[in-house]
Amino acid sequence: MNFHIMTLFPEMVIQGLNTSIIGRAMENNLINIDAVNIRDYAFNKHNKVDDYIYGGGAGMLMQAEPVYLCYEAIAERIRLSKSGGDETKKPRVIYLTPQGEVFSQKKAEELSREEDLILLCGHYEGIDERVLEEIVTDNISIGDFVLTGGELPAMMIVDAVSRLIPGVLNNDVSAEFESFQDNLLEYPQYSRPEVWHGKRVPEILLSGHHANIEKWRHEQAVIRTKERRPDLLKNKDNYPFTE
Amino acid sequence: MNFHIMTLFPEMVIQGLNTSIIGRAMENNLINIDAVNIRDYAFNKHNKVDDYIYGGGAGMLMQAEPVYLCYEAIAERIRLSKSGGDETKKPRVIYLTPQGEVFSQKKAEELSREEDLILLCGHYEGIDERVLEEIVTDNISIGDFVLTGGELPAMMIVDAVSRLIPGVLNNDVSAEFESFQDNLLEYPQYSRPEVWHGKRVPEILLSGHHANIEKWRHEQAVIRTKERRPDLLKNKDNYPFTE
Repeated sequence: MNFHIMTLFPEMVIQGLNTSIIGRAMENNLINIDAVNIRDYAFNKHNKVDDYIYGGGAGMLMQAEPVYLCYEAIAERIRLSKSGGDETKKPRVIYLTPQGEVFSQKKAEELSREEDLILLCGHYEGIDERVLEEIVTDNISIGDFVLTGGELPAMMIVDAVSRLIPGVLNNDVSAEFESFQDNLLEYPQYSRPEVWHGKRVPEILLSGHHANIEKWRHEQAVIRTKERRPDLLKNKDNYPFTE
Repeated sequence: MNFHIMTLFPEMVIQGLNTSIIGRAMENNLINIDAVNIRDYAFNKHNKVDDYIYGGGAGMLMQAEPVYLCYEAIAERIRLSKSGGDETKKPRVIYLTPQGEVFSQKKAEELSREEDLILLCGHYEGIDERVLEEIVTDNISIGDFVLTGGELPAMMIVDAVSRLIPGVLNNDVSAEFESFQDNLLEYPQYSRPEVWHGKRVPEILLSGHHANIEKWRHEQAVIRTKERRPDLLKNKDNYPFTE
């Protein structure tokens, strides 16, 4: 799977995704992450990509043309890579914006079935509406809060989607994945030692009795979900976790 | 404001926050970001910080002791920095977990009033419950999806909180901030040129008539919110944006 990230800060994106599981997935060519600098497509001598907002208002807006040219270059690269494939298919372009659909595990699963994903990161006050109308296929929001740019949300989508791609997580973890109860938060977990700061691991977890352990874990998951996220129990569709 | 980030990947956190507005805020000493490697507090010769999960299950769990020792070192540093302050006050420790309260702009505003924030990033299958019980004051989730670790959510919280600290955004942007209508998504915005790919900027934005422009923008914001996030109009408390 190929992620193409349109950004003013390509180093930030690459360095932030270089580590651990995602870094290893890149090394193993399970995923490919290409961060493209929108500024390389500036059409003036100062490399400026932003300008004042029509109708007034503080701050600057990213202009349509550099964003469009950057998109065109990526789309062309995708087309060329598909010898024999459907060359007329418009690539999927996700704009990270608080004005979008709220991201969820269900959306991550849907996106993990794409071959190429373009992620567009805004900065300053946003991007000229006309280029968004022309190229964007999905508006996605990470949540109801405001950030300085779309880079961290884009990195998060790369992370959430990548770990669903076969081979990215090691096999036993992926296996557990499938067996998990839907719609519940995870139960508490414990590792060695048996006693830490005077607190014992719950006896049942040391019993070796598999069925009882499963029962206890399920009860704990229900209790925790009731306490912390009762909304998930009310509307199961809200909770698209599959692990 | 001081952010102390407990992580197995300190370089990732620092490099991902080094750019643009947050990087400048660090240079100007408006914020300070300290990424502390939990592995430095491993208590065995292999620098191992994880172990099997009691009761079975795939994957590994981060053990209580290294997390606790790392926390203690940070808490001690905070205590020493507060000469004359309240030295007995327990620092605020946020654990990034899908089992937490969902992060929002309201929460960002609340956190921006703290002097020190400790952010704890889990990896592998999570962290031993006993140390979480002992040190964590807030469980925060970025959304209903699964990531490979808590680092990206922690970076996002640093970003969302930092931009609320006076001086981090430049003044005119902060000013607009206050004047924004609550509970609505943002209206479309346009920058030069007036015509791009045959699309004109809406006439009204070029009129110079301030009251009409405000009216149009409000209408557009309502239309967009109805189309994209009708849930925000139903329950205004859900939408804690102040800009």
